[in-house]
Amino acid sequence: FCALAVLARASGTEPESTAALLRDRALADTTAYRLVESLTTDVGARPAGSAADGAAVAWAVARFHALGYDKVYTEPVTFPVWRRVAESASVTGPVPRRLLITALGGSVGSGGPLQADVIAFEDVQALQAASPAAVQGRIVLLTRRMARRADGSGYAAVLPMRSAAASIAARKGARALLIRSLGTDNNRLPHTGSVVYEGGAAIPAAAVSGPDTDLLERLLRGTRPVEVRLDIEVDTGARYTSYNVIGEITGREPTREVVMMGAHLDSWDLGTGAVDDGFGVAVTMAAGAMIKAAHQVPARTVRVVLFANEENGFDGAQAYAARHAADRASHRIAVESDWGAGRIYALRHVPADPVLTGRLARVLQPLGIALDGAEGVPGPDVAFVAKRGAPWAQLAQDAADLFDHHHSANDTLDKIDPAALRQNVAAYAAFAWLMAN
Amino acid sequence: FCALAVLARASGTEPESTAALLRDRALADTTAYRLVESLTTDVGARPAGSAADGAAVAWAVARFHALGYDKVYTEPVTFPVWRRVAESASVTGPVPRRLLITALGGSVGSGGPLQADVIAFEDVQALQAASPAAVQGRIVLLTRRMARRADGSGYAAVLPMRSAAASIAARKGARALLIRSLGTDNNRLPHTGSVVYEGGAAIPAAAVSGPDTDLLERLLRGTRPVEVRLDIEVDTGARYTSYNVIGEITGREPTREVVMMGAHLDSWDLGTGAVDDGFGVAVTMAAGAMIKAAHQVPARTVRVVLFANEENGFDGAQAYAARHAADRASHRIAVESDWGAGRIYALRHVPADPVLTGRLARVLQPLGIALDGAEGVPGPDVAFVAKRGAPWAQLAQDAADLFDHHHSANDTLDKIDPAALRQNVAAYAAFAWLMAN
Ligand SMILES: [Zn+2]
Ligand SMILES: [Zn+2]
Ligand SMILES: [Zn+2]
Ligand SMILES: [Zn+2]
Repeated sequence: FCALAVLARASGTEPESTAALLRDRALADTTAYRLVESLTTDVGARPAGSAADGAAVAWAVARFHALGYDKVYTEPVTFPVWRRVAESASVTGPVPRRLLITALGGSVGSGGPLQADVIAFEDVQALQAASPAAVQGRIVLLTRRMARRADGSGYAAVLPMRSAAASIAARKGARALLIRSLGTDNNRLPHTGSVVYEGGAAIPAAAVSGPDTDLLERLLRGTRPVEVRLDIEVDTGARYTSYNVIGEITGREPTREVVMMGAHLDSWDLGTGAVDDGFGVAVTMAAGAMIKAAHQVPARTVRVVLFANEENGFDGAQAYAARHAADRASHRIAVESDWGAGRIYALRHVPADPVLTGRLARVLQPLGIALDGAEGVPGPDVAFVAKRGAPWAQLAQDAADLFDHHHSANDTLDKIDPAALRQNVAAYAAFAWLMAN
Repeated sequence: FCALAVLARASGTEPESTAALLRDRALADTTAYRLVESLTTDVGARPAGSAADGAAVAWAVARFHALGYDKVYTEPVTFPVWRRVAESASVTGPVPRRLLITALGGSVGSGGPLQADVIAFEDVQALQAASPAAVQGRIVLLTRRMARRADGSGYAAVLPMRSAAASIAARKGARALLIRSLGTDNNRLPHTGSVVYEGGAAIPAAAVSGPDTDLLERLLRGTRPVEVRLDIEVDTGARYTSYNVIGEITGREPTREVVMMGAHLDSWDLGTGAVDDGFGVAVTMAAGAMIKAAHQVPARTVRVVLFANEENGFDGAQAYAARHAADRASHRIAVESDWGAGRIYALRHVPADPVLTGRLARVLQPLGIALDGAEGVPGPDVAFVAKRGAPWAQLAQDAADLFDHHHSANDTLDKIDPAALRQNVAAYAAFAWLMAN
């Protein structure tokens, strides 16, 4: 890293040239890959409230220290624990067939096996329009397929099936909800994600793999009723204290606002949380490490926040927002990496400062990143400080493939392209440096 | 079908024009798709010796009749039953991790949980070279990856890991064998297939999903021993009588040799046997149905044979060969569809008759099928009559994607391209017509 420091001095210390050096150094650096390899190998799945949640926190603290961060600390986050214990489903008539399903995060259990006829609707709108008499006593199946889009916008279109439909079905008297997995793949691996019950209207809710949903649809085209048996056992009631893990590179002017980069440390239980969000953890930790290793001190403090329990309640983000929104040192900008493992193609929602945006545009352009003027969206954790007024930005990633693996057992290390990972680190490091100076 | 009969008469009844008409008619026909849709929906997985094996036999008999075949009959095939009861595996040290595995067909059970350190080898050659002292008391892991090739030849290169390695490991004192799944995908779905024990050297044998094998390899690069716990329960000992199901279009000259098209009716238990070998069942049944519907009687009888238990013993093929090799009406040619769901690109191993090969070349050329002069291989069931001297041919399919899904839970209807299926039916119908006349 000495060579870099020398080069930085040689080419002047103005922010733009240092940002460009950080960018180029990151494109040849393997720190991020080694981080996500270690997180997925040595810790693995780390659902909020599990033993691995604690292991992940310890891992993150140790890694921040090893990477040379100036300040490493944790902030407690307490939440109710939801744990998948067992889940199974099968068609019992007209022909016996096994179904591959997974309970949605937060689902209530079925209290033993539950058996009922299936009634299918294409989406939440069709379910809302259905008469309670048609739904009463049945298992509701929602069948809409998610569209593949480079910006991942197909997800928002089907998300109400997972988040909102269970309570709608419950209020019409349904006994359980099954949904086509929110995914763009055709693997027999269901995709989990959290369900949100409204006003206590809670029935068991599970996602069915795509090919198994196809099978149910074909059986439902027959003349005989399709009966499904569902058995979901969950463990709830306990409370757990996890931690947001924070690492900082202390700035020269510590009373100024911080530049915050976030990701979430927890993951779902089915895969190993490589893409969601081991990738983001690795990108932000490595980007901070690049800055530290540059041997130039940024003007503002660079803060990397690894949030607790994003997946099943956003508890870490809420705790962070409550604690830090009114900090003396509040946020210069907050940015989050939690949208898959694709390359970044756009930077959005940056301050309207022509000197700054000119620098950002020039430094990011060689990475294929444009300031495309789109409005953008904050990351899911950053959204909570954004709501309280913190400035935020988005480094928008190509998400065309994200939903092939998202929230399924397939979220494993092999789904990460090391070159795309390095491009992300380069962008975050350069962006953070320019925002910090 | 009347229009076709009229057209056939209008353009003369010589074999080539009728073959061309059958080909073109098949390209617009949905019979095959409806067959494989029904087999995978109404029967599903049909492992040899299961209740679904019987359901599949009844399904095939009924469908042959419904398709207008002149003669439909079954021939008994008796074999020992192997049934998967339960299987699980996990890494117990240095970190607890769940592994996604599946027992190989024919594997012995573990007699309860079995726990041992893992020793990895790249392939069978490396295992053979290992000293028994290194292997003794351990679980052997074979890690070689299968290469993706259009002709599927990557499979043969890794097949000994599945078929032969267990006994080699057993003779060196290993307690169990794990292999990287024989597949070209990166899904967390293990691929099964049969193990062959040699001389009673039997230890539990299972396939690990690709990403889980990656994890084991990463853990093994660490300094601490990697311990795995494996629990495989199987059910063996019973004998079962299934049936080869045969449908015939009776020829004008029934004392002449038959034209035989084969596929296997059984499947593995994990998927629904759509590609392997519902596709072949649909292709051959539909090709015969096209010939029947042409309202012209072929000179030779066209026989479609759906073999019992190809997957776990070739028992149907052996019974058929023993019974029919010496038939008065023996085989003009035997051909089999059991190499995935890809398009056919070559016809191989046809009789050296210039008039016949000229016709075949001209009729198949519009389908993108060439008589490329390669030696070819008989299908796995046809190989048994071929060994006894029956002439055979190969309609070679593109198998670049076959091993993404082969023998895994992912072998479902959505993996079949209806257009490729129709191209296969067109080729089989035209080929059979030309061979029968
Ligand atoms: Zn996430
Ligand atoms: Zn997520
Ligand atoms: Zn097969
Ligand atoms: Zn097979």
